Amino acid sequence: MPSISKKGQLMPQSPIRKLVPFAEKAYSEGKIVYHLNIGQPDIKTPQVALDAVKVHSLEILAYTRSEGSEDYRKKIATYYAKNDINVTHSDIIVTTGGSEALLFAFGSIMDVDDEVIIPEPFYANYNGFSTASGINIVPVISKIEDNFALPAIEEFEKLITPNTKAILICNPGNPTGYLYSKEEIKQLADLVKKHDLFLISDEVYREFTYDGEKHNSIMEGTGLEEHAIMIDSVSKRYSMCGARIGCLVSKNKEVIQTVLKFAQARLSPPTLAQIASEAALDTPQSYFDDVLEEYQERRDVLIRELKTIDGVKVGTPKGAFYCIVELPIKNSDTFAQWLLEDFEIDKETVMVAPAGGFYSTPGVGTNQIRIAYVLNQESLVRAVYLLKEALKVYKD
Amino acid sequence: MPSISKKGQLMPQSPIRKLVPFAEKAYSEGKIVYHLNIGQPDIKTPQVALDAVKVHSLEILAYTRSEGSEDYRKKIATYYAKNDINVTHSDIIVTTGGSEALLFAFGSIMDVDDEVIIPEPFYANYNGFSTASGINIVPVISKIEDNFALPAIEEFEKLITPNTKAILICNPGNPTGYLYSKEEIKQLADLVKKHDLFLISDEVYREFTYDGEKHNSIMEGTGLEEHAIMIDSVSKRYSMCGARIGCLVSKNKEVIQTVLKFAQARLSPPTLAQIASEAALDTPQSYFDDVLEEYQERRDVLIRELKTIDGVKVGTPKGAFYCIVELPIKNSDTFAQWLLEDFEIDKETVMVAPAGGFYSTPGVGTNQIRIAYVLNQESLVRAVYLLKEALKVYKD
Ligand SMILES: Cc1ncc(COP(=O)(O)O)c(C=O)c1O
Ligand SMILES: Cc1ncc(COP(=O)(O)O)c(C=O)c1O
Repeated sequence: MPSISKKGQLMPQSPIRKLVPFAEKAYSEGKIVYHLNIGQPDIKTPQVALDAVKVHSLEILAYTRSEGSEDYRKKIATYYAKNDINVTHSDIIVTTGGSEALLFAFGSIMDVDDEVIIPEPFYANYNGFSTASGINIVPVISKIEDNFALPAIEEFEKLITPNTKAILICNPGNPTGYLYSKEEIKQLADLVKKHDLFLISDEVYREFTYDGEKHNSIMEGTGLEEHAIMIDSVSKRYSMCGARIGCLVSKNKEVIQTVLKFAQARLSPPTLAQIASEAALDTPQSYFDDVLEEYQERRDVLIRELKTIDGVKVGTPKGAFYCIVELPIKNSDTFAQWLLEDFEIDKETVMVAPAGGFYSTPGVGTNQIRIAYVLNQESLVRAVYLLKEALKVYKD
Repeated sequence: MPSISKKGQLMPQSPIRKLVPFAEKAYSEGKIVYHLNIGQPDIKTPQVALDAVKVHSLEILAYTRSEGSEDYRKKIATYYAKNDINVTHSDIIVTTGGSEALLFAFGSIMDVDDEVIIPEPFYANYNGFSTASGINIVPVISKIEDNFALPAIEEFEKLITPNTKAILICNPGNPTGYLYSKEEIKQLADLVKKHDLFLISDEVYREFTYDGEKHNSIMEGTGLEEHAIMIDSVSKRYSMCGARIGCLVSKNKEVIQTVLKFAQARLSPPTLAQIASEAALDTPQSYFDDVLEEYQERRDVLIRELKTIDGVKVGTPKGAFYCIVELPIKNSDTFAQWLLEDFEIDKETVMVAPAGGFYSTPGVGTNQIRIAYVLNQESLVRAVYLLKEALKVYKD
């Protein structure tokens, strides 16, 4: 029997997927599972986006240009202009989700054994994309005590080697909810300029900021013309994860030309989804106002309830819809599995994402979980109650 | 300025894309360009597929499972069963086009510097996927004199090294139109079993066979349980290239589990397009009968007309909708560009794909072009006429 590749063996399984069989077992036993583990919002997709694919008059569902349809890219540029980001459609490549934009960025700027420095905890699939690309993630630990603020810039500088090609941040952060300040972005900008690195910023949650805080993009007034690569996606913004539309944005022409070659090899991003995504750009502001209000309330409810649990530590997320929670336990992998297998109150339990998978340094974050607040407030209250009761009886 | 990766520099540009600026110049000069260069069919997408996305009642355009929705995979398995291919939905992973299936296959079974043997000329984007994956293509030349039949199996065997992990065929072939016989498939099956290699078969044109010939899949009665990986796509079958839905099929559980990890990292294939693709499986047989009749007629017209040109060599394609044509010129790159820049009759010219890009051995195929017969018959006649007249005046 022929064998699979080393790369294939090394490809990580997502920290959540490992639990899926246990969740399925719980369902089959008739348990209701509150999902605090997923990044799939329960918010409705804007009607204008859904309608666009209903009224289209395509007779042939053809490929679009590999870089995305020109009309759509022009409209994206206009969206960015409104957000003080000065780019044209030729700085934008439409991708199959932010996921593909990340893969293209890695492939375009890094070779095997090159290194990208990422503050951890970070979005777990960065591991998968780096394994697939044969590159190495070098983590810098950010701490729950600091609310996951940017680690001191010297911590980054210490890690730079001749193989370092880029620094990657997620802003606002999944799984931390941290929103980087203008000053932090400036520090990173200075650092990448000094060492001639790329700064990749995953801004797929750019619209999700709370308490009136403003999002600071790396494309905005940082003078990072040649160094900045922004990753974006319609998935969360318009609650249209299934569209599979994202984009990569850079003013660096060589980067765009290179990414375009990767894009051409796979021919085209999805056509129907581009129609929906283009229409989504016309979503009325009231939609976002409602969504943000809802998420901010959920966050407030979640944090308030979590703080009633003894021994629990949690920061205050300022963006996205996740937070990292430290629990008075040793191993959140075991705990998360136990919640599904052995715990219930009135046939109800809760599913959480063990945070170990969001760290690259072994042994860090093993007493933490990630919670996504993509449930309505009532469910959130109930889910945290279940967590609280579970912690009272759990022994590890 | 930070530099792009070696991989990014090595990523090939598709042989067609290089000509696009010249085509655009031709348009701007008011020329009509007959496109013999593209693989985008002009055939209408089945109404049942287009309608499915119009009537859907989704409120949230959510991710599906990373391996594709279960219903859709079950229906695909039924489709294969009808084609004498015995697989279940758990042998199938839905991908973002056949393109992604190829990338996942390469990543799952090959590491950097591993080798895949491919009969050339081959689909040019295999170059891009192998560069992106850091693996090497080892070509075996198939010849226009033999109608691009499978090269002698000893030619493959000679090239096998400890780094060889797979043989990749495209059946029927792009760009050759060659349809492998049962005997040829059996020879390949025996070879991969003997050397414990994978056999990857790109069957995206599986439905496009002419003269009543039957398609022979590697999944069909070859006893290749552990060695076979089939690549498929809805792009050409239903003329829905823009859907971006394909799949990877294998009875090898380890392969499927590994591919699934790549699939999980990018979360989900496009949701709307899965709805359309699932509906497309209900396309009435009459649609295919019409389409095949049309393509067969086009092929006949094309070959007949081409054979009226002095010094032109062309085989008889038995499948897909491409053929390789040898011209009485030295360099088809220069010729193709000249057609767009310097040639016209009544403001009309023709665009062809230089075949060099379909070969991996340098210097081979430089006097060949690929023609896709995705135009109506009248346009094909006119396009070949233009080619004929062009060859009369062209000097290289
Ligand atoms: C931080 C981050 N980046 C990128 C992605 C990829 O999303 P998509 O490929 O759906 O755009 C996600 C999805 O959860 C994410 O959380
Ligand atoms: C031989 C072959 N394989 C794979 C593909 C990829 O097609 P898609 O990604 O649209 O399924 C193509 C497209 O032209 C092709 O010709």
